[in-house]
This record gives sequence, structure tokens and C-alpha cells, in this order.
Amino acid sequence: MDDRDISQAVISRLPRYYRYLGDLKDDGIERISSQELSELMKVTASQIRQDFNNFGGFGQQGYGYNVEYLYNEIAKILGLNEKHNLVIIGAGNLGKALANYVNFERRGFIIRGAFDKNPALYGKELRGVTVQPMDNMEKFITEHNIDIAVLTIPKDEAVKVAERLVACNIKAIWNFAHVDLNVPDDIVVENVHLSDSLMKLSYGIANTQRR
Amino acid sequence: MDDRDISQAVISRLPRYYRYLGDLKDDGIERISSQELSELMKVTASQIRQDFNNFGGFGQQGYGYNVEYLYNEIAKILGLNEKHNLVIIGAGNLGKALANYVNFERRGFIIRGAFDKNPALYGKELRGVTVQPMDNMEKFITEHNIDIAVLTIPKDEAVKVAERLVACNIKAIWNFAHVDLNVPDDIVVENVHLSDSLMKLSYGIANTQRR
Repeated sequence: MDDRDISQAVISRLPRYYRYLGDLKDDGIERISSQELSELMKVTASQIRQDFNNFGGFGQQGYGYNVEYLYNEIAKILGLNEKHNLVIIGAGNLGKALANYVNFERRGFIIRGAFDKNPALYGKELRGVTVQPMDNMEKFITEHNIDIAVLTIPKDEAVKVAERLVACNIKAIWNFAHVDLNVPDDIVVENVHLSDSLMKLSYGIANTQRR
Repeated sequence: MDDRDISQAVISRLPRYYRYLGDLKDDGIERISSQELSELMKVTASQIRQDFNNFGGFGQQGYGYNVEYLYNEIAKILGLNEKHNLVIIGAGNLGKALANYVNFERRGFIIRGAFDKNPALYGKELRGVTVQPMDNMEKFITEHNIDIAVLTIPKDEAVKVAERLVACNIKAIWNFAHVDLNVPDDIVVENVHLSDSLMKLSYGIANTQRR
């Protein structure tokens, strides 16, 4: 893998390839042609070849792709071979759901801590870690080498907490608050704006009805 | 509003405009220039003008945009002036979090029912509705005029449940399962693949470190 710039569009497709290749691997399938992968994923075979060409191809003429090799290469590109320590900020329903729902550890994301401003939650367990007061956040992040903060708090608080996270050198924020965070460019932010997603659904319904 | 095709890219930006305009409205701001909106949202003023031109403009030379008018027009385009009945399939942590976290009612999304295959959850309350067995699902959807199903169940079950939803004429599926659903084109599917999002975050960290 080299340092060429890969377009955002290609990158945003990689997790989906990874998901499908993982399923194939789990099903014991060793190799697949771009044509078969194309039918499975409902994208054109030429799109698949182009995407994979961005990082060196991986395919062999007449053989197709080796599923496990391709799976592992994409994992490397996505940085999934590295372990990441994360904390959850906001131990309410969503924080709890994320801690339990997403298969964090399998992807190398280890939950090290959880924080909330609600004293009623202090000391409660969240996937093996104990919920702490927000005041402990900075010290904990620094001492435990935390890369990622998962923000599941209301938008008014999220902006201020993001500033505190920047001050203690967090690398990335997985943001579920309904607000765009204003952080320096070298901090990675991945937004999951659930209400935006629900509005797109609503638009889809309105337009399907109109047909 | 007419029936012109608006590009997916424009549509995917509408919820964000709507969110910012809602905040401005809540702050009592009556009008805003495309320049001011541009600085606030960190998109170019020409992008804003182009986007709004897709559905007739809404701006007046020298005045700018009327915030409330624009907010209401975008709501109409997004279909937010219509009420939608929804059910939650999967009353675990994520189902519970979604029921309580997203401001459903404010956007016209009314939770009518919740279903789970776990008998221990039957009869429990989820934001005012009672969790029912999966066997009741089809009858309930038909009798209560349900438009939207929110899927928060494991991927193996999601595919089968989606087929059952199609058979009882659901209009839209908000899919949180880690799988792409295979449904007819006239059924709207909006995916929230949390693990894909986490992988993009991981890619971002890997690339920022490399700089």
C-alpha cells in the first residue's frame, strides 16, 4: 500500500466490500470473480475492478480474487489491524446500545471507559467498564491512551465536550449528537446524524407516493 | 414544487439545511443571506444558491432568505408535513435508544408498535407502546396503517423479516441491521450501518497518523 490519495467515494465503499468479503469468508468461500461479487453486491464488475485497482488490484486473471487475502488487505487499508482504545461519553440508552450492539472488539475497538454527567449512573457497568463522572474525562483519556470518543450526548453539551476532547488530544470523534462539531482538521470526525437519516427516509416515501 | 428530478446529492444535503434553519428559527432569527448561511455551514454561498434553485429559489435579491419560510418549504420537500406511523422491530438496547433518543414526534413520526422475538420483553413499555410478539406483526401493520418499520435486529433475522414486511405492504424500512436488504424498488430503504461508519473512522485515524 502506498500513500496515493484514494478518493472519498472509494473509501466510503470499502466497509461494504469488507462486510461482504467477511460473510463470504465465514461461509468458507475461498475465491470469487469480480462478476460474481458484482452480482452479489449489485455494483458493476468494472466498478469493483476500478475500486480495487486503487490499491494495487489483488486480482489474478482467470482466477478472480482470493477472498481472505482481499479481506485482510482491505482491513489493513481501513486500519483495522490496529487496536483502538475508546471511551463512550453519555451512558444513556444510545451509549448502552452502542456498547452492546456493534461488535467493537472484533474490529479492534476496545471500550476502556464511559462517562456521564448524571450521578445516578456513576458506578454502573457498561460492557465491563464503570460509568464515571465527566470531571474524570480528561485525566482518563490522557492516562489510558484513548484514541476515540463516542459522543452520545445532547447537541448543546456536545459542542463544549468536543472542545475538551480536542484539548486532551483525542484523535477521533464518533459523533451521534445532532450538531456539526467544529474541531481542527487533524481530528477525525465521523457523524451519524440519525434525524438526517430519518428525513431522507421521509423524502423517499413522499416521492414514491407521488409516482 | 414540481416533479423535476432533484439529484441525490442535493437531497442528501437537505436535512442538514433543515437542521441549521431550525436552529436559526429557534434563536429567533428571521432572515439570513446566503453569505451568512455559507459561513455558518461551511459550504460555499454558490452551492447554497444552486441547491435552493433546484426547488424554486426562495431567496430575494438584497433581502436574503426568510428563515421560517425556507424551513417550512424544505419540510414540505422532505415530506415532514405528513404524519408517518412506525413500528420498531427489535426492542433491545438499540430499539429502546431510538425510541427515546430521536425526536420522532416533532418530525411527524409516531411510534405505534414494537415487536420482539424475546418473550421476556412482551408487555414491556417502549415510549408508550407495549412490546408484542413477532407473530402479531403483519396484522398490526395492516390494521394500523404503518408506513415505516425500524429494523434493529441481527442480520440473519433482518433479511427474513424484511420479506415479511414487503408482503404486508410496508412503505419504508429504516435498517440498522448489518446487511443490505433485498426488497423491491418501490420500498424505501435507508441504511444506518454503524460498523461501516466505525470503519471509516478507523481509516481516518490510520491516514491522519501517516501524515
